[in-house]
Amino acid sequence: MPQSSCSFLAPMKLRSVAAGPLADLSFAVKDVIDIAGHVTGCANPDWANSHPPAAAHAVCVEQCLQAGAICLGKTHADELAFGLSGENAFYGTPLNPAAPDRVPGGSSSGSATAVAAGEVDFALGTDTGGSIRLPASNCGIWGMRPSHGRISVAGVSPLAPGFDTVGAFARCGGVLQRVMSLLLNIGPRPAALGKLWLLQEGFDEAEPAVRTAFEPVLERLAGCFPCREMSLRSIDGEAGATGLDNWAQVYLPIQWAEIWSTLGSWIESAQPTLGARTRRNFELARGLDRRLLPAALASREHYRAALARFLGPEDLLCFPSVHAPAPLKGSLGLDRTQGDYFPRVLARMAIAGIGRLPQISLPAVDVAGVPVGLSLLAAEGNDAFLLSAAQGVAAALDD
Amino acid sequence: MPQSSCSFLAPMKLRSVAAGPLADLSFAVKDVIDIAGHVTGCANPDWANSHPPAAAHAVCVEQCLQAGAICLGKTHADELAFGLSGENAFYGTPLNPAAPDRVPGGSSSGSATAVAAGEVDFALGTDTGGSIRLPASNCGIWGMRPSHGRISVAGVSPLAPGFDTVGAFARCGGVLQRVMSLLLNIGPRPAALGKLWLLQEGFDEAEPAVRTAFEPVLERLAGCFPCREMSLRSIDGEAGATGLDNWAQVYLPIQWAEIWSTLGSWIESAQPTLGARTRRNFELARGLDRRLLPAALASREHYRAALARFLGPEDLLCFPSVHAPAPLKGSLGLDRTQGDYFPRVLARMAIAGIGRLPQISLPAVDVAGVPVGLSLLAAEGNDAFLLSAAQGVAAALDD
Repeated sequence: MPQSSCSFLAPMKLRSVAAGPLADLSFAVKDVIDIAGHVTGCANPDWANSHPPAAAHAVCVEQCLQAGAICLGKTHADELAFGLSGENAFYGTPLNPAAPDRVPGGSSSGSATAVAAGEVDFALGTDTGGSIRLPASNCGIWGMRPSHGRISVAGVSPLAPGFDTVGAFARCGGVLQRVMSLLLNIGPRPAALGKLWLLQEGFDEAEPAVRTAFEPVLERLAGCFPCREMSLRSIDGEAGATGLDNWAQVYLPIQWAEIWSTLGSWIESAQPTLGARTRRNFELARGLDRRLLPAALASREHYRAALARFLGPEDLLCFPSVHAPAPLKGSLGLDRTQGDYFPRVLARMAIAGIGRLPQISLPAVDVAGVPVGLSLLAAEGNDAFLLSAAQGVAAALDD
Repeated sequence: MPQSSCSFLAPMKLRSVAAGPLADLSFAVKDVIDIAGHVTGCANPDWANSHPPAAAHAVCVEQCLQAGAICLGKTHADELAFGLSGENAFYGTPLNPAAPDRVPGGSSSGSATAVAAGEVDFALGTDTGGSIRLPASNCGIWGMRPSHGRISVAGVSPLAPGFDTVGAFARCGGVLQRVMSLLLNIGPRPAALGKLWLLQEGFDEAEPAVRTAFEPVLERLAGCFPCREMSLRSIDGEAGATGLDNWAQVYLPIQWAEIWSTLGSWIESAQPTLGARTRRNFELARGLDRRLLPAALASREHYRAALARFLGPEDLLCFPSVHAPAPLKGSLGLDRTQGDYFPRVLARMAIAGIGRLPQISLPAVDVAGVPVGLSLLAAEGNDAFLLSAAQGVAAALDD
């Protein structure tokens, strides 16, 4: 496996207008998002070699360029955005500047590392099952997945359209707010926090070292905000079900079915060369028993509606972004079903996916020198409130 | 131009399970929606010849099959779903059984005519800018576009993902409710109508014959429901702007930009043979000044949020589905910018698209023997209420 330390697939300098609300900012673009005249390679060589150049910028890229930001290049990613490690069998592993021996996380790996390394001010990524939130946490930066459907995905290669979102990374909450507000066409919405709901399963199911690292965070939050504990059982009503894993059991059949519907015909007909882990991922998607779909879709809607009833317009839901610090490079094995790292990551990422909720991961702790983020989620459509409130939370943690 | 009278591109008999909530129903599938093992041709021969067979059923097809419904075939459509007439230069014009000399409307033309002719009990279609609501109105049947993002579009060829939806046609509200409830994973939600908002511009900007035909409908509605008039100006706040056209001015730049981002690279690289009207449509999409995007996206969010504040959870918005009866076949010319039929259709269709609102068109009047539907719209996510309330409205009109 090549060991690239570079965030960028292709550097460039692209500026559309000199003035605008983002004119002081540079940015990078994940290689699943169109830049006119360039092939969107989706981080796989056979895809890149069999697809024509993009006819136009993706809508989200156009928004940033028209706001005056300068695009400095396209970034590496997990193949076809179907992965969470950042280890690409063809293009290597972008260096995680916060923890150089650890994976950056994916699939928006290069976008996260470019921001973390200070190479750009912000970066566009996509998040289906954690592809912004996880690398933001691993690299010690801010990352946001917006409410589903609010930022245009036109010109963005689809993976699982029921969960696909476009979002961004930045090193501080202020830049993230400027970029996401522009993409979402929203203004600032300062508001006092109603309740900060601490998700029991989100803390309990983290590794002991992560739980310990979050103890002072919880103390600080309790001193500053109206904190309350809550359990997923009050949302899903599943008696006896196993914590977060229950949400993965609802999320994964839908995600795999959608991925196979989206990319299966290309995989079957083009027979591309895939990295070993990616190949195994597509075998899982292909092998899914699609008779599971109706029950999973019904549970998804049940959970989504229950989350919508539970989370008030001034509430946040809160838990560690990931259960464990970023794994050592090369340690993850080839099969996501071996070991429990990927299933445990996906389980907590599934909450926002199922609920269509916006989620921010912001830098919070380090565990033996490796960053782990704090995640904040708001009600669907309350992205403006989340962006404002997250900065208040970050300020309280920094004090 | 060939003059096919057939709804079906390819008949088939596909049944997955014998029992289920839709086991008594047959259905058809628009040829932009995947059926495993068949090429999804998108109603264009060059597309069909250059794309591999679908690896799996689209999620929405899987839902219907797992519910016991039997699929009887794939239906004709406007090329690449980018059209509203139902006149396909390669496959002909599916016969509108309610008005055989008129176009059925598109782009889900064959799905509408198959239902109207009684060939199937329901049909799946897609609706980006009116592609279910218009043919439902033209063919004298029920059709529904759901809230955006609530029914999976995985396995459905994208056109403009910010507006794309999967929906259905049926000959009665009861079957439509069963099918859409299954796809949406919702139950019935009977509720008394709060307010039935009559959209002034929707009535005023219809042709005189349509306005006249709707007079007894309005009288009946006023006798049965708490009707109130409202103007789009109370939503968009655009002083002096020109009625519905203002909404088209917001909708169209986004739709065209998204279409070009989605299909432009294929059009440019494959250089497919397109029907004359489709070719002109893509020229418009290619030629769009994308600098218009930021302002259009900002207005879209402004209008969406204002609609969300305005429409209460038990309210409906109401207006004729179309300003004019279905045009005579062959009368529409090749350029959608010539004449005002397409712009006027798109303008009123843009309300649900911009607002992400669910909309049902149900049979209401005929104008010199040609059907025109009544449209009902509910707040975003209130699809269950809309399905229940629309049947109450239809019952009142039938009394």
